[in-house]
Amino acid sequence: MVKITLPDGNEKNFDNAVTALDVAKSISDGLARMCIAAKINGELTDITTTISEDSKVELVTQKSPESLEILRHTTAHVFAQAMSRVFPSAKITIGPAVESGFYYDVDCEELTDSDLPKIEAEMQKIVKENLTVTKNFKSNDEALEFFKDNEYKTEIINDLISGNLSEEEKGEGSVTDSGFQFYKQGDFEDLCRGPHLPSTGLIKAFKLQKITKAYWRGNADNKQLSRVYGTAFWKKGELEEHLTMLEEAKKRDHRIVGKKMDLFMNHEYAPGMTFFLPKGFQVYRTLQNFIRDLYKQYEFKEVMTPNMFNKKLWETSGHWEHYKEDMFVFDIEGQEFSLKPMNCPSHCLIFKNDFRSYKELPLRIADFGALHRNELSGALSGMTRVRKFCQDDAHIFCTMNQVEDEIAKCLEFVDHVYNDVFKMSYEIELSTRPEKRTGSDEVWDKAEGALAAALKRSGKEYEICEGDGAFYGPKIDFRIKDCLKRVWQTATIQLDFNLPSRFELKFQNENSTEEQPVMIHRAVLGSIERFMAVMIENFAGKFPLWLSPNQVEIINVADRHQDFCNEIKDKLVERNFRVECNFDNLGVGKKIAIARDERKPNYTLVLGDENVEAGNVSVRTRQFVNGKNEEFTCSVEEFISKLEEERESKAITF
Amino acid sequence: MVKITLPDGNEKNFDNAVTALDVAKSISDGLARMCIAAKINGELTDITTTISEDSKVELVTQKSPESLEILRHTTAHVFAQAMSRVFPSAKITIGPAVESGFYYDVDCEELTDSDLPKIEAEMQKIVKENLTVTKNFKSNDEALEFFKDNEYKTEIINDLISGNLSEEEKGEGSVTDSGFQFYKQGDFEDLCRGPHLPSTGLIKAFKLQKITKAYWRGNADNKQLSRVYGTAFWKKGELEEHLTMLEEAKKRDHRIVGKKMDLFMNHEYAPGMTFFLPKGFQVYRTLQNFIRDLYKQYEFKEVMTPNMFNKKLWETSGHWEHYKEDMFVFDIEGQEFSLKPMNCPSHCLIFKNDFRSYKELPLRIADFGALHRNELSGALSGMTRVRKFCQDDAHIFCTMNQVEDEIAKCLEFVDHVYNDVFKMSYEIELSTRPEKRTGSDEVWDKAEGALAAALKRSGKEYEICEGDGAFYGPKIDFRIKDCLKRVWQTATIQLDFNLPSRFELKFQNENSTEEQPVMIHRAVLGSIERFMAVMIENFAGKFPLWLSPNQVEIINVADRHQDFCNEIKDKLVERNFRVECNFDNLGVGKKIAIARDERKPNYTLVLGDENVEAGNVSVRTRQFVNGKNEEFTCSVEEFISKLEEERESKAITF
Repeated sequence: MVKITLPDGNEKNFDNAVTALDVAKSISDGLARMCIAAKINGELTDITTTISEDSKVELVTQKSPESLEILRHTTAHVFAQAMSRVFPSAKITIGPAVESGFYYDVDCEELTDSDLPKIEAEMQKIVKENLTVTKNFKSNDEALEFFKDNEYKTEIINDLISGNLSEEEKGEGSVTDSGFQFYKQGDFEDLCRGPHLPSTGLIKAFKLQKITKAYWRGNADNKQLSRVYGTAFWKKGELEEHLTMLEEAKKRDHRIVGKKMDLFMNHEYAPGMTFFLPKGFQVYRTLQNFIRDLYKQYEFKEVMTPNMFNKKLWETSGHWEHYKEDMFVFDIEGQEFSLKPMNCPSHCLIFKNDFRSYKELPLRIADFGALHRNELSGALSGMTRVRKFCQDDAHIFCTMNQVEDEIAKCLEFVDHVYNDVFKMSYEIELSTRPEKRTGSDEVWDKAEGALAAALKRSGKEYEICEGDGAFYGPKIDFRIKDCLKRVWQTATIQLDFNLPSRFELKFQNENSTEEQPVMIHRAVLGSIERFMAVMIENFAGKFPLWLSPNQVEIINVADRHQDFCNEIKDKLVERNFRVECNFDNLGVGKKIAIARDERKPNYTLVLGDENVEAGNVSVRTRQFVNGKNEEFTCSVEEFISKLEEERESKAITF
Repeated sequence: MVKITLPDGNEKNFDNAVTALDVAKSISDGLARMCIAAKINGELTDITTTISEDSKVELVTQKSPESLEILRHTTAHVFAQAMSRVFPSAKITIGPAVESGFYYDVDCEELTDSDLPKIEAEMQKIVKENLTVTKNFKSNDEALEFFKDNEYKTEIINDLISGNLSEEEKGEGSVTDSGFQFYKQGDFEDLCRGPHLPSTGLIKAFKLQKITKAYWRGNADNKQLSRVYGTAFWKKGELEEHLTMLEEAKKRDHRIVGKKMDLFMNHEYAPGMTFFLPKGFQVYRTLQNFIRDLYKQYEFKEVMTPNMFNKKLWETSGHWEHYKEDMFVFDIEGQEFSLKPMNCPSHCLIFKNDFRSYKELPLRIADFGALHRNELSGALSGMTRVRKFCQDDAHIFCTMNQVEDEIAKCLEFVDHVYNDVFKMSYEIELSTRPEKRTGSDEVWDKAEGALAAALKRSGKEYEICEGDGAFYGPKIDFRIKDCLKRVWQTATIQLDFNLPSRFELKFQNENSTEEQPVMIHRAVLGSIERFMAVMIENFAGKFPLWLSPNQVEIINVADRHQDFCNEIKDKLVERNFRVECNFDNLGVGKKIAIARDERKPNYTLVLGDENVEAGNVSVRTRQFVNGKNEEFTCSVEEFISKLEEERESKAITF
């Protein structure tokens, strides 16, 4: 007899081994139709897995949060099946579900975007065929024999045997006591950890999106494969909404908007590194100075540290052991040096440079230093995946008793930036002690307690992610939502018991004895490059006045108005506004349209005879009122006052 | 018969071959006593060189500018002779005259600073011995035999034979038709190009100063030698004045003052790279922002470019061929990259990034990018010889017709910074076309004409250095004097016809045809690191208010005055002043002394009962009036007004 305990505590007894699907059917046929997988004793598995012992069973339906990932993983298999039918010589490699869909890496040099509709049509056929998805096990030899013509799968199988798979690759296959786990649907069979939908007919709405290039197993020494991206949803409407959002996101793509607005450029000689053109650097510096003003208020002290260090620094910090691959390393006079990927170790050197007394704590050190990370060229993208960036990075050295106050102030800082200024909502996650960690339980108790107390003081809701903290301390993450409801992780607050210990940092406490400080890593905007990309997309280039590189554009009605335009420009520039005149030999309407499309100025002044006569300005805003842009005429002084007020208030206008 | 023509045109005939000394004697014995060398047909040589053909002869006396270098070179030989007597096993290597003295590199591991007096005493003996200095020639074999126990000299001799000496090393020896040239004085003989004084007795005032370490021939793979520095003057008074100036310079040494003032630190893990501590970064940013404000006025546009580039960029610019050794080079995915040692090539990429019309010119691009140069660790010093620095670097792309106006504006910019703001005098040098050059004579004519015209417009005097221009264009250098009359080369303006051609830069001119722009490199402060070092030494840490990291220090008379002190501080901070309170448990006099010695605040407020009662502040300035610091009492508002005025005017007060 098998006893099944359901999440609500109800128990069901079965005479023989059952599947979760049987359990669902025993409750209702409707439920069984919605069920696509199950958690058996906490472990996610196929709905058809046999249960032969007393177990806790949780049914996973299309409404469960886990279900989308399973849907997408099975859709990836359907893609691979269709791929094999359309391109019989293609070699399939690895295909996981990712955040908003799935991808599949295939070795098929002839594959282009124009092939996607054909493959999609084949996938549609496989869905219609409603093939049952079944699991089976193969021995080492059987598995290797099965994939004897596919060197990629062979490599994965061998690495599964030797345990050489990376954390990310573990989803690609699993080897159990019964052998290698395979899934089969009709004429297609693949090595996979699963779980999968019970049949291909359950796939209702999917789409292949694009093809990019990716090195086999992320290693630049390996062959470049084609990575096909796709997504799937339970409902057509959801898929369409998602694709619409992507369309809108595409229009706002910072790479396109940034180019149109002359904010930045890239060059093949410096992959992954942004050239900030004058207007882009204007935005960049305005963001930095915005944070600097807050540093004054929150009493952070800004430093500038070197960009490269002897490997001895990284050996002390532990980066040499764990992070070397991500650093740019070179030789100077027979010693290894590398460009810094982060500022923390150099701030430890600053702390250690002097005798430190408790009177100096909390010591808050901020640094906009240039960070370099050796990202693979294939992974680089716009300003979001780069090799060079800078963060609004700071480290607070303090006593354990000061942690709560410091965290509370950091939370206030973050809230001011996102809530008050950028009007973006966010969710907070508190991640607590993981299994592998440094520091005593007593220290972790105090630290987690301080973080929770600070969060409570902030009055914000937060989620606790048990065990998700870093090995060196608990942390608070922020999930910030842009106006397309996309989530970005930018701000972070992390406690660190590790670096102070590795660098043997000490201060003299009130009892004149030596004590180790706690270190808090915190960033608010995070990477300025990435934050700027998020801002460009969030505002679709229509920056709020204080941040805008094109605050006012002045258009002359006729050549004879140029002097007057320049006069107005000079008055605005004198008050530190960013103003340009467009005297191009084009019609006024055309020039307004170009400004709106390319430079997106907050205000467009169109100046003609009437303005010259009255000495006033005709203003056109970006706001729509009754289907057209708001317009008004006022004196220059009134206009300047309005601008100054708007700049000061950091108001957001679209 | 030998006819000698003197610089004034007078001719003298001699029956037989003569020496320049004979010529001098034929004029007057007094002149002969002052003569120490001669220029024969323009070539500097010993006073005892035989002249057997008709020649132009210019006598070099102790008053000639060249004479100091000869004195110091002979003093270096006297040092080497004394060294050989005191340390018979020491091996002498290379010993040239340098800007304000000489050095000699010796292989002698036991040598320490404490040996210098002993060697000086021996030198004094050699001077008293008044040894005649004579020249002789040796064949290859003789020369090698002479130095058979000295592998350094042997290497030099072999490289002289094969022509492998660097430009700097050429003074170390010369090989003529008669063989290798040697100089002998008593028991000492050395390979040398000369010229030298005719006897050691002419050395009147000399000093050995210090010992540093240097790699043999500047190559870090070679053995480290001891470099002994010394100097010599014609008069004891001049030597003393020089040593006093060095003493004063030592007290002002930016490395010492900077440490006392907590401006910056260094660390062995990042040799040659400055850690700017909060106060130092305050000065650094204030300097940058001062220049940025001027950029607004002079219409420069600031950009930020990547720090590393594919070697293809450096191949295009020519740096790969000529500058590779000075760059940090590393590999990314099988391609060579290097950190940028200068910004110009990346600005060429920006120019090339877009279609350019004559309407956009002059295009003035400014960049505070981090520059890295692979200086030898032995050459690194404080903030003046570093591996990482940034310049107030800008490049102007313009037409040849715009050059004069642009140069005139650059001259105005430089004059504003040095003359108006920093009150430093300077000399200007215009360097014209060198023998080896790029660009047609017509282009050089125009360019030199434009530079000269701009200099004339500036009303400043300038010196022309014929043939000293760069191969890529003429240039203007500035020799800036600090308050110890030391000369610094910081600002520079250089025309460049080479990079626009290498990068194939083009703009569309008024006739709609393509034309190549001229590029102007210019920097005003030059390296900000170096400029800051110069400023620290020039002001001895007593920065003018606008630049000062410690504008006001507030000292409480007793504990009960702390609140009042903090109130005053807050009022000042609100007006953006940099203020600190010193509430240390020390006497007022002691705290004033510490402030004066370490932090050098512009104003020290000492606040006690009377101030609390009257609500005013007692101010102590850095100015000395009748032998003590100026003091006055005034209202907070008056004090703030005074400070604001002083900050605004950028007044210099000591």
